Amino acid sequence: MNSFGERYRLTSFGESHGPAMGGVIDGMPAGLKVDLDLVQEMLDRRRPGQSPTTTQRREEDKVEILSGIMDGVTLGTPIGFIIRNTDHRSADYGEMSHLYRPNHGDYTWQTKYGVRDYRGGGRASARETVSRVVAGALAMQALRTYDIEIEAKVTRIGTVEVNYLETLEEGRREILRAKSEHDSLGGIVSCRISGVPVGLGDPVFGKLQARLAQAMMTIPAAKGFEYGLGFEGSKCRGSEVVDEFIADIHGGVHTLTNYSGGIQGGISNGKDILLRVAFKPVATLSRELRTVNDQGENISFVAKGRHDPCVVERAVPIVEAMAAIVVFDCLLTDRLSKM
Amino acid sequence: MNSFGERYRLTSFGESHGPAMGGVIDGMPAGLKVDLDLVQEMLDRRRPGQSPTTTQRREEDKVEILSGIMDGVTLGTPIGFIIRNTDHRSADYGEMSHLYRPNHGDYTWQTKYGVRDYRGGGRASARETVSRVVAGALAMQALRTYDIEIEAKVTRIGTVEVNYLETLEEGRREILRAKSEHDSLGGIVSCRISGVPVGLGDPVFGKLQARLAQAMMTIPAAKGFEYGLGFEGSKCRGSEVVDEFIADIHGGVHTLTNYSGGIQGGISNGKDILLRVAFKPVATLSRELRTVNDQGENISFVAKGRHDPCVVERAVPIVEAMAAIVVFDCLLTDRLSKM
Amino acid sequence: MNSFGERYRLTSFGESHGPAMGGVIDGMPAGLKVDLDLVQEMLDRRRPGQSPTTTQRREEDKVEILSGIMDGVTLGTPIGFIIRNTDHRSADYGEMSHLYRPNHGDYTWQTKYGVRDYRGGGRASARETVSRVVAGALAMQALRTYDIEIEAKVTRIGTVEVNYLETLEEGRREILRAKSEHDSLGGIVSCRISGVPVGLGDPVFGKLQARLAQAMMTIPAAKGFEYGLGFEGSKCRGSEVVDEFIADIHGGVHTLTNYSGGIQGGISNGKDILLRVAFKPVATLSRELRTVNDQGENISFVAKGRHDPCVVERAVPIVEAMAAIVVFDCLLTDRLSKM
Amino acid sequence: MNSFGERYRLTSFGESHGPAMGGVIDGMPAGLKVDLDLVQEMLDRRRPGQSPTTTQRREEDKVEILSGIMDGVTLGTPIGFIIRNTDHRSADYGEMSHLYRPNHGDYTWQTKYGVRDYRGGGRASARETVSRVVAGALAMQALRTYDIEIEAKVTRIGTVEVNYLETLEEGRREILRAKSEHDSLGGIVSCRISGVPVGLGDPVFGKLQARLAQAMMTIPAAKGFEYGLGFEGSKCRGSEVVDEFIADIHGGVHTLTNYSGGIQGGISNGKDILLRVAFKPVATLSRELRTVNDQGENISFVAKGRHDPCVVERAVPIVEAMAAIVVFDCLLTDRLSKM
Repeated sequence: MNSFGERYRLTSFGESHGPAMGGVIDGMPAGLKVDLDLVQEMLDRRRPGQSPTTTQRREEDKVEILSGIMDGVTLGTPIGFIIRNTDHRSADYGEMSHLYRPNHGDYTWQTKYGVRDYRGGGRASARETVSRVVAGALAMQALRTYDIEIEAKVTRIGTVEVNYLETLEEGRREILRAKSEHDSLGGIVSCRISGVPVGLGDPVFGKLQARLAQAMMTIPAAKGFEYGLGFEGSKCRGSEVVDEFIADIHGGVHTLTNYSGGIQGGISNGKDILLRVAFKPVATLSRELRTVNDQGENISFVAKGRHDPCVVERAVPIVEAMAAIVVFDCLLTDRLSKM
Repeated sequence: MNSFGERYRLTSFGESHGPAMGGVIDGMPAGLKVDLDLVQEMLDRRRPGQSPTTTQRREEDKVEILSGIMDGVTLGTPIGFIIRNTDHRSADYGEMSHLYRPNHGDYTWQTKYGVRDYRGGGRASARETVSRVVAGALAMQALRTYDIEIEAKVTRIGTVEVNYLETLEEGRREILRAKSEHDSLGGIVSCRISGVPVGLGDPVFGKLQARLAQAMMTIPAAKGFEYGLGFEGSKCRGSEVVDEFIADIHGGVHTLTNYSGGIQGGISNGKDILLRVAFKPVATLSRELRTVNDQGENISFVAKGRHDPCVVERAVPIVEAMAAIVVFDCLLTDRLSKM
Repeated sequence: MNSFGERYRLTSFGESHGPAMGGVIDGMPAGLKVDLDLVQEMLDRRRPGQSPTTTQRREEDKVEILSGIMDGVTLGTPIGFIIRNTDHRSADYGEMSHLYRPNHGDYTWQTKYGVRDYRGGGRASARETVSRVVAGALAMQALRTYDIEIEAKVTRIGTVEVNYLETLEEGRREILRAKSEHDSLGGIVSCRISGVPVGLGDPVFGKLQARLAQAMMTIPAAKGFEYGLGFEGSKCRGSEVVDEFIADIHGGVHTLTNYSGGIQGGISNGKDILLRVAFKPVATLSRELRTVNDQGENISFVAKGRHDPCVVERAVPIVEAMAAIVVFDCLLTDRLSKM
Repeated sequence: MNSFGERYRLTSFGESHGPAMGGVIDGMPAGLKVDLDLVQEMLDRRRPGQSPTTTQRREEDKVEILSGIMDGVTLGTPIGFIIRNTDHRSADYGEMSHLYRPNHGDYTWQTKYGVRDYRGGGRASARETVSRVVAGALAMQALRTYDIEIEAKVTRIGTVEVNYLETLEEGRREILRAKSEHDSLGGIVSCRISGVPVGLGDPVFGKLQARLAQAMMTIPAAKGFEYGLGFEGSKCRGSEVVDEFIADIHGGVHTLTNYSGGIQGGISNGKDILLRVAFKPVATLSRELRTVNDQGENISFVAKGRHDPCVVERAVPIVEAMAAIVVFDCLLTDRLSKM
């Protein structure tokens, strides 16, 4: 289905080349002062057409709020919103209506539904993530009133580890190199959630890490998720990664270390939550590929249309948005834990 | 909450040292012939006390079906079941009621709920996974009628890559070595889902990989999830990992390779689904650790009670069970895709 | 929350005097040919300003479909839509921002949320039902492909039983009489669902009558629901109202009578489903009433703004829409009953 | 499905003549002191075999709590419970396995699922309501900590209005008269919910009356629901039934009257909530009836087995239980209304 979240819940809609993308946010409590400029800023960070390393499609991505907010304050009613699709160029996609692009959802969607909007990937396009950014930007504003902050950044582009600004530039050069060779890159986005109180997440099937994993793996091109020490930590011995507790003089309880990545027993422990998401290299390549058309014939084609050589930079605000939705959702449901 | 799945849905209950574990499976269609011996076999694979590398706790783990099945056939009504907890030895845990074991949920649960069942971890114990195995074993039987098979296996123990039987023995020796040093190990479980038709999974927030990620990350001690080429694949160039399509002479469409891990655009493409789950080393160590008691005092303690030095072998049927629940759920909801 | 339905699911949004009403329909299967003119026709039946017996507010109520339908065929993706609010006249409501209109939600909403959109009732306005009509009209088109028809009509206005066209005119005269006396009327809408196959509805908590009851009681001003013989039937003896079965020569099984109203054991039995919904007289009266303002002072006021003296005629398409959503939802989930 | 409630959620299971009935209650907050004797008392009120006017089936209906409560305090974890079926006498039902009892779910269930547990109605039996009483009794204890009380009583048996103890005796004589004539009766159960704070219920699709209607219409044999003035009130003029507001000297706002039945705009207004549920006469009659067998032959039969001539008295605790589940659920979710 097209909804995400239990009590702070986004229901999204929209095809890449239809009239508009949009969504409904249900469960935002009443009384939050919202700054729509901050929502727009986060949308702008996701927006294509900003640098040589991203696609040249230019959308204004101007969000129009249709309900749920009056005089800058949330009403407790659903927040409906739309973002018009302004720069279609559907013609670019005309010839692709009859073939299945490799590594895209064309074939699986066509088989599942018997019909598809082939224009720019339709609903399978990463353009649907604009709706998530709106819901995430509002969740972040709500979280900020609890002093919870979420920050994601690119930590690997292709094989280039990105830790400093210089290495980010190196990563970007790597992208341009791949682009010039009609190729594409993947990478990793890391996210830190700080200021989280103890107690977020629900045991067993609603573990905080399970919700975060689900959230991140819904992002187009995501292929892996880990938190804390993740895959590497599975090589350690238990004695190397134990987070011992210590009491401070105010009676607070803390772990001395944070190998656990801020979550224990499925519930936040007050330390920073640290997670990483792996993204595959972009599927669309400007080079000749073999595929099958809807007549069942083997053919070759070269993709037209605009596309990023690497999505990881644009994925940053999406990772933040999904993290914000999850954390705010857990913060709300935690109000129901005790009598 | 304590439910998992949309239309094939397990609601589970039970504390490790309470009277019983159990659950309700809602959404099993009517008319499936079930073999309860196979359910018991899968439970036995998960059961502790079977080898020197696992905990010595001996539970019969005998499932009692209370509803939903008559004369070996499912009725379409909910399947209620319980597994009695027979080997408590709660006395072992008495002293732990006043301290927070590091890397366990003791502290986070106590803070969230203001109360907890401290006996053997209570509901935070991995013992809750017995209920998942029951639901998973029944899902697997349903999937088998569609020729879908699910098989998981250990592929890394600590730092030992496990590909053959000999290396499995090497891994087990590594476990015993860790055990003798009062230490513990983690590892990786890999899972292959074969025979999957094209079309399982729902776009956007119900992507097959997102459901699998959520499912796997609800398993205690899981720290990472990936499918297809996963984290390593994020280092590749797009041209290296493109799954080109080819038509066979019967009109079928296939990918020549399976870098995608059987899922494209969130929907299964008919190839084997391949996923991996990383597990951290077991948290409980038979050595002195620092922690805090419920009086807020810094103390040292050595864990009593029985515990595995490595969970990855016992995690195998749990990974299979969770995969089965997800795939069967998707198989059912796929019936709703077309008019 | 603001969603209705399990698998055919409407999530609605919008305040009466905000920019737009709208919604997202999730779960419409792919491949339905839709006629948007029929959707508009049903919206027009709900629309105010059509006769002297209804409010003079004139909205075009023109639906704009934003996604999920391409070339007149559903895609299996969510159908987002909006209906702009064009005729605000919010000024009429300015003075009402500081008082609680009796029998309206002003006071309860203000207390629950601490804030409210006071303009025309905001989200509590019956204007939100436009979104239901869109979802219902599409469900009706889907149901028609299964030869299921839904028809509601007014069967009582105030105390006037309405069975024929003449009595409908008598009912309308009753409305005008009430209007001229600054008063309002209630009544009953009855609904017949025909062509329903055996098997719709889910046992225990998803009984068809329970879903219909919930659906109808979400309609503003609805005060009662009954099906089959309803309240009157509870006075009968069992022997008077037994629906005996008979087999026809083709092996079909039928009830000789339909006292049950088409549902037995929570599941449709193939007979027409008959239900009735009672609506209270309109709450807004053009006469002086006592109330309290937001300063906690006792005051008197006379309502301004436009309002119907009787809603039952306009409720007819809404009853049909809600019935259609329920029945189509059940039709979809029934696909999951058997292996 | 077999779950009811959003955040206080019962998932139930069990066939009338299977090993046990039971359920899982998810969402009970931690820290409630529970008195299991009160749960048993409420179960006893529902239990058959207590008077000449009810069925002679004797079940102990002894609830066994399996999880979620330790030392008499809720843990915040799911409460699993079972009630063993001890007095089967399934032999009585043997011959009925091949015919469809009129007014029962036999035919509709068989058609929907292709299989059914014919013994005593299987899951369609009103025996499933024991699970609701357990969940309801616990909800009532939680509500009592908020000074919310729920009380239902029989207000009509057949055509006998029951307002005082004498008339209850008259009603019971009416039942015995019907029984002696191999006939059955229906009636009405009325329910008052008092002490409710302002603000329970969610707008639009989660209106308090809609949840109550759904809850009540899931009870076997329920045919109608109304609240406030209900069906009769739909005959009144608006001016006759207006609940004007008045401020008290403490700044409180109240309605002078309670025509609305305690709910305005879908949200409780602090007045008593008043609702009524109509029950049809019992379907099983000890007289010859025509029906069809599973060979498609027209036959006659006389029902064996034990059955009530009138269910309304036994329905009283079930109505209370369902009301309690709804109100407690709304009380919990109301915590999420404001930032």
